Amino acid sequence: MSDSKENDLPIGIFDSGVGGLTVLKAIRAELPYENLLYLGDTARLPYGTKSPASIARYATQATAELQKQGIKLLVVACNTASAVALDTLREQMRPLPVIGVVEPGATAAVSARPGGSHLVLATEATVRLGAYRKAIETVDPAATVREKACELLVALAEEGWTDGDIAARIIRRYLDEASDSHFQADSIILGCTHFPLLKDAIQAIASDRVLLVDSASTTAAVVSNTLRSGGRLRDSDKAGSLRILATDGATRFARVGGQFLGQPLSYADVELVDL
Amino acid sequence: MSDSKENDLPIGIFDSGVGGLTVLKAIRAELPYENLLYLGDTARLPYGTKSPASIARYATQATAELQKQGIKLLVVACNTASAVALDTLREQMRPLPVIGVVEPGATAAVSARPGGSHLVLATEATVRLGAYRKAIETVDPAATVREKACELLVALAEEGWTDGDIAARIIRRYLDEASDSHFQADSIILGCTHFPLLKDAIQAIASDRVLLVDSASTTAAVVSNTLRSGGRLRDSDKAGSLRILATDGATRFARVGGQFLGQPLSYADVELVDL
Repeated sequence: MSDSKENDLPIGIFDSGVGGLTVLKAIRAELPYENLLYLGDTARLPYGTKSPASIARYATQATAELQKQGIKLLVVACNTASAVALDTLREQMRPLPVIGVVEPGATAAVSARPGGSHLVLATEATVRLGAYRKAIETVDPAATVREKACELLVALAEEGWTDGDIAARIIRRYLDEASDSHFQADSIILGCTHFPLLKDAIQAIASDRVLLVDSASTTAAVVSNTLRSGGRLRDSDKAGSLRILATDGATRFARVGGQFLGQPLSYADVELVDL
Repeated sequence: MSDSKENDLPIGIFDSGVGGLTVLKAIRAELPYENLLYLGDTARLPYGTKSPASIARYATQATAELQKQGIKLLVVACNTASAVALDTLREQMRPLPVIGVVEPGATAAVSARPGGSHLVLATEATVRLGAYRKAIETVDPAATVREKACELLVALAEEGWTDGDIAARIIRRYLDEASDSHFQADSIILGCTHFPLLKDAIQAIASDRVLLVDSASTTAAVVSNTLRSGGRLRDSDKAGSLRILATDGATRFARVGGQFLGQPLSYADVELVDL
């Protein structure tokens, strides 16, 4: 296979459901000429409330499917799977690169607010594993980190109730519960791929001086740098293709996923696969 | 095996997660001397957003596990699984009885409000299948039925935010969306096992004249009648036992499940099984 053929292979993007489409959208904006292959493991979502052993098994199976299809780089566009299984998936994909969403988000927050206080909003599993805390403290030992599980925000994003009074009150309650006289956030890290849909609503509740860090765009920048430094970028005079695979519920995937992708999706755009 | 030994076999209760514990609690109140075996398929919850084919496969596997353990009657304490797979599970359990939660709830609503207007609050899958509509219209052709998917109520119940302002606003929005000048509910059927936790909050928003139908207690009554008429009740001078199986996440099951059961649960009370 020539280099050109290898570079034409798609970037594989894997998530437990539709949330990773926010990451796909950011990658497409950054690298519009790349082919993209998305896999949403909708049959087993949400990962956020499952055990680490189950999450690792699901992530391994999803990665094997993407390897079978052929990809040149894997993006683990699920915070929970990134937190649990990144090392395992790097072993599985070797020598091809694997990029999670936790490290890019943590690095972006630390760069913008060195020595600062970071509030991570995430799923229960991501919080339990302390993935962002570890990633931030590795880069900036002077940082203060607080992590807060916000399961209702996932449901809010899926329901499409991303603005208005109900979203505002739920966000305010979570932010109030996470703050006290000892902790006022300098940055809020959106540690779940569903949460970029609530970015405006969260910024409206948080003080203006609080920086919101969306791992979608920071992850896209890391993908771009990794492909460039490896000489694996596709020729930029071609338009990239998009294929979407899901393990269950193409109709629901299309309806909810369209909100995350920011463009209408039809169930015919979603291919069902069995892992 | 003597009749007595057979009658000592537990009632099997199956749900996608912890929600069915509301049904278990009602059965235990009605039949405190019965042995109960609960299986929560937490590895694959929620069923409410999955496809019918996946839901049927999960329900069949869960039932096979309960058959292996030995049960005398199966309660499908999950509205979605009842809506999708009841006939399949009856075939699988024959000649032992299988009781779902949809028919008891529908029958109770129709008996209390003949010819009335019924609002069913449920998951997306239960609504899509029109299970309550069919069950109600079979019993009472004069009835009017409206079904409303309320996914955020599931998250509210799991988060434990079952009263207060946020719960009230979310419930009001769903009820407003489901009502218009042509439809004012005489009964509201809680068509998801998570929703009994929100019963007080829902009644506080609905008019006093609206009857709230909780399928947990109506299902418990059907279980009692079925065992009695089949001569399968256990001797009432013994205390019943309770065993809880889950397919993932014993710690989370215990924490959230305690709210549904109305008594504290420890992770040591939850046995993990692989389906």
